[in-house]
Amino acid sequence: MTNSNQFDVVALCQAAQVASRQLARLSEGQKNQLLLAMAAGIEASIPAILAANAQDMQQAQALSTAMQDRLLLTPARLQQLAQAVRQIASLPDPVGQIRQLQPRPNGIQVGKMRIPLGVIAMIYEARPNVTADAGALCLKSGNAVILRGGREALHSSLAIAKVLQQVLVEHHINPAAISVLPDPDRAVLLQLLQQKAYVDLVIPRGGEGLIHFVSEHSKIPVIQHYKGICHLFIDKAAEIDKGLRLLLNGKTQRPGVCNALETLLVHQAIAPQFLPLAAAALEDAGVKAYCCPSSLPYFQQAELAGPEQYDSEYLALAISVKVVENFAQAVAHIEQHSSGHTEVICTQDISRAQHFLQLINSAVVMVNASSRFSDGGELGLGAEIGISTSKLHAYGPMGLESLTTEKYIVIGDGQIRT
Amino acid sequence: MTNSNQFDVVALCQAAQVASRQLARLSEGQKNQLLLAMAAGIEASIPAILAANAQDMQQAQALSTAMQDRLLLTPARLQQLAQAVRQIASLPDPVGQIRQLQPRPNGIQVGKMRIPLGVIAMIYEARPNVTADAGALCLKSGNAVILRGGREALHSSLAIAKVLQQVLVEHHINPAAISVLPDPDRAVLLQLLQQKAYVDLVIPRGGEGLIHFVSEHSKIPVIQHYKGICHLFIDKAAEIDKGLRLLLNGKTQRPGVCNALETLLVHQAIAPQFLPLAAAALEDAGVKAYCCPSSLPYFQQAELAGPEQYDSEYLALAISVKVVENFAQAVAHIEQHSSGHTEVICTQDISRAQHFLQLINSAVVMVNASSRFSDGGELGLGAEIGISTSKLHAYGPMGLESLTTEKYIVIGDGQIRT
Repeated sequence: MTNSNQFDVVALCQAAQVASRQLARLSEGQKNQLLLAMAAGIEASIPAILAANAQDMQQAQALSTAMQDRLLLTPARLQQLAQAVRQIASLPDPVGQIRQLQPRPNGIQVGKMRIPLGVIAMIYEARPNVTADAGALCLKSGNAVILRGGREALHSSLAIAKVLQQVLVEHHINPAAISVLPDPDRAVLLQLLQQKAYVDLVIPRGGEGLIHFVSEHSKIPVIQHYKGICHLFIDKAAEIDKGLRLLLNGKTQRPGVCNALETLLVHQAIAPQFLPLAAAALEDAGVKAYCCPSSLPYFQQAELAGPEQYDSEYLALAISVKVVENFAQAVAHIEQHSSGHTEVICTQDISRAQHFLQLINSAVVMVNASSRFSDGGELGLGAEIGISTSKLHAYGPMGLESLTTEKYIVIGDGQIRT
Repeated sequence: MTNSNQFDVVALCQAAQVASRQLARLSEGQKNQLLLAMAAGIEASIPAILAANAQDMQQAQALSTAMQDRLLLTPARLQQLAQAVRQIASLPDPVGQIRQLQPRPNGIQVGKMRIPLGVIAMIYEARPNVTADAGALCLKSGNAVILRGGREALHSSLAIAKVLQQVLVEHHINPAAISVLPDPDRAVLLQLLQQKAYVDLVIPRGGEGLIHFVSEHSKIPVIQHYKGICHLFIDKAAEIDKGLRLLLNGKTQRPGVCNALETLLVHQAIAPQFLPLAAAALEDAGVKAYCCPSSLPYFQQAELAGPEQYDSEYLALAISVKVVENFAQAVAHIEQHSSGHTEVICTQDISRAQHFLQLINSAVVMVNASSRFSDGGELGLGAEIGISTSKLHAYGPMGLESLTTEKYIVIGDGQIRT
């Protein structure tokens, strides 16, 4: 069985590479036409997709309520999915953009042209919507995609992919442009991760376990997105109202996501004014605080922070709090504990705002704005295929441009090198 | 001994990461001042560096003449090295550049700022000049660098690095910003390649064996540069003189390098005019041709091409030749056999020139220019730290910009997400 699986995976990857060449040549208009037809196809296939989803839901009774909710499709959710595909059609196409076309002293013109990466493998968990989302983003950026979703969502994913592939076939596009690994075995995933001759990039989306597994075993470059330990630093020149707003929004608007705040740093000069209000607001909102000795007295029910506290991603109504002596100490704390995701300074001082923007090299660095804006949609990417917390290739929320690269183009008139 | 080595490598990488934070904060002026001092330091230390090089040369008698030549330093070569460092000082600094700063509907401003990658590991062979070159490029782009050159050049590399580090110390910069692995053992290299917590990118420069070894064992992302199987396609609308010039220059100006031509494709409509002249010119230049059946008769001493011929990187006065029926067949041949390095079309037809630029997704795609221009200096990068033939992060010749990434910056006035 392993041998026949291995053959299948290789053949699937080879077919994806062949299809990717056709995709790379489509014009923006052709790609948009496909995407609009896919959106219509999803809407027209709502009964069939819901029937497949019902099969998945039947087998999902052992899953947590949260996982079941992610897995569940409804007519409204499928309408939203179709709408998301239309939204991707409306985004500008990065492929073919030329920049910096300039003459060299010998008269050749040299520039860079944006091109698709080729074949993307998306590895995700029980979120059937990723099938359509990732399929549409890869198509719009001219890439073939191999989708490997969680076993729990397999019927739903296959049903959605079938709709997308049908549109491809009707438009004379190789259907291997969007394919689903039909076998969710880890052994098959391992085989997929070896296919560096055919697959250009692996994007895992899910829990830390999945990302570690993929990174550990992949021979193909992997976009890594680990923890989001996001910091808010209340500078001595912060406006207290702004600081409270950013703190509450960052921590409580949606605590279970990676751009939620995990640590509050407060300049000692403003701590006596800020911390009483912050402590009251956090405790009103049901947030448990883990505090340094200086901040602890401001809270009613906080705990003293242990040594590992400032490296914790709570993903819950909990926060680490620390008073710092000065700006440099805040920066040093962030450098030591940051996961490279998002950091915020709250200050009215333009110099310290500038320094913060320059000194902190997390993927998203903010002045006076909520960490919750650290997301592809909010930052203006239109849609997001993942977030990278490693600096190679892409850093931060990844949109269409992150699914492309640039080649050099040279236009001469017979010049040779002497 | 293994344990103490392991400790050393980790400590060295940690120190490099600490130093990288200081480097990331230097202004362009400060970095240029360091580079100019390093250039002067190299010139002032010519006797000491030559003495170290003499030690390497003494142990190099078993090496090939070509390798001994690469290893040898002379006063003139060291002057050139210093000059190259001055040249790097004169290049524009990519760090801190901001692009696309634009307001979002809620009033936050979102843009991207270019930042250094952090710590680069350069793995190279017996080329002592890479020590200064890579050290200077990494410094200019704000990165710390760990240099691991070949055993054969160790004394020379250490002598050059000592000069660079002395300049760092004199300017109160952490000398771990430029460090040399003092032990060229493969076991130590293997330890280095595990340090993904501290090292952001590995750039191997050397033969395919070295690059395969590094890619195979690295837990850190690796820039891959394999073969250069560069194609020249003589379209039916080629000007014959231009075609001959590009062919001769591409194949014979320096046959041992990766941007030399390895394959000539000729449109069948122009073959009867082009190939007699091409065959004579190639044979005059001592180039051995491996031909398809259609092109073979034009040559005096060519051989019929075997099945593996079109995947061969000769790096010598030899070339594969093939007549193709049409433009599409040329593109298909290149897609199948290209190593993703550089491809050239010779044509006067603007539509086919455009199609070639769009359809071929090698790192460098050219119209009517010699493949020998596929090099960082010739393309206007000023200097080159490597060439990537994989599409991730960087594709093609890599200059300073390839040693950086972009973070998002967000400037608000207290906005929160609702």
